[in-house]
Amino acid sequence: MSGVPLTTTTPTLAVFVGTSLDGFIARTDGNIDWLHEANLLVPAGQDCGFSAFMASVDALLIGRKTFDVASSFDKWPYGETPVYVLSRTLKSLPSTAPSSVALISGTPDEVVALLGTKGHKKVYLDGGETTQLFLAAGLVSEITLTTLPVLIGSGRRIFGPLPNDLKLKHIGTEAYPFGFVQSRYAVGSDA
Amino acid sequence: MSGVPLTTTTPTLAVFVGTSLDGFIARTDGNIDWLHEANLLVPAGQDCGFSAFMASVDALLIGRKTFDVASSFDKWPYGETPVYVLSRTLKSLPSTAPSSVALISGTPDEVVALLGTKGHKKVYLDGGETTQLFLAAGLVSEITLTTLPVLIGSGRRIFGPLPNDLKLKHIGTEAYPFGFVQSRYAVGSDA
Repeated sequence: MSGVPLTTTTPTLAVFVGTSLDGFIARTDGNIDWLHEANLLVPAGQDCGFSAFMASVDALLIGRKTFDVASSFDKWPYGETPVYVLSRTLKSLPSTAPSSVALISGTPDEVVALLGTKGHKKVYLDGGETTQLFLAAGLVSEITLTTLPVLIGSGRRIFGPLPNDLKLKHIGTEAYPFGFVQSRYAVGSDA
Repeated sequence: MSGVPLTTTTPTLAVFVGTSLDGFIARTDGNIDWLHEANLLVPAGQDCGFSAFMASVDALLIGRKTFDVASSFDKWPYGETPVYVLSRTLKSLPSTAPSSVALISGTPDEVVALLGTKGHKKVYLDGGETTQLFLAAGLVSEITLTTLPVLIGSGRRIFGPLPNDLKLKHIGTEAYPFGFVQSRYAVGSDA
């Protein structure tokens, strides 16, 4: 029917990430050799809920560094799901980027509003700087953190400075027999 | 019998600590208001294994800052257990210190050897800087990390730089109904 208003919802942002016990997602130079090594412990077919999580989101929002890491994988890790690359500096994507990838820019509030106008309801937020930016803006709803059994001492952190404490509500934890521990939290000052 | 050699064992060092999800043990100024606030969620009588852990150690090794924090509590938190305060700067302890407290100094290896000559077998290592120092020296055997459901953004970290990765062996995880998640790890390059 004509006349039906275009409704946009505010999408929720969800983080799903693996870190060392000391909170790093990569070494300082971006190297994730320690992650690959820890993944050798994981039985074939076990993805620690990643595919179920991917099935629950309708888009991704990542930073340029995460885009570079994802691009370096043998297989593009996000399938057909629309991926928005947040960048202040990139003018265009490399021609090798999958067709599911688009650039996006703006303040965190503007970006979330923009994702809403595109009809997205749940967006997977991936990458350290992007996660930190949207957490600090109070725009992240959910964190699923998988802790790998290793300390690497330094590198790129998943969490950064915040303007205020963020209370979390623990939703659940699964300890895998290969030593990974995955906890899920809802985020919010009233969580 | 005379002539029996004095045998000293090398004590194991164990960490038992609560942190925010972003890995802090205190705010930058040492404030642990967020920890006290999270502890309001904990039912009376629930100590998340602390007294059982305390019963498993025969001494504590803490830094000067942790000594100051412990001294500020209404009740000295370590009971009658011998406590060694590692300090390069303190010449003597305040007269208000419990009689169970002594100063200790030296390199990490020297300190562990000294604790061994005193007959200690399992030592509770408490405090951020001390934990970081002995982890970096490869002298920590066990970490029990209780993660509180809050992000505080900045402060004093439990983990710091390392000369090399430390592999961990996950021993067990308990998710408490009030949202704390406690994981225990054995530490070692061959863990």
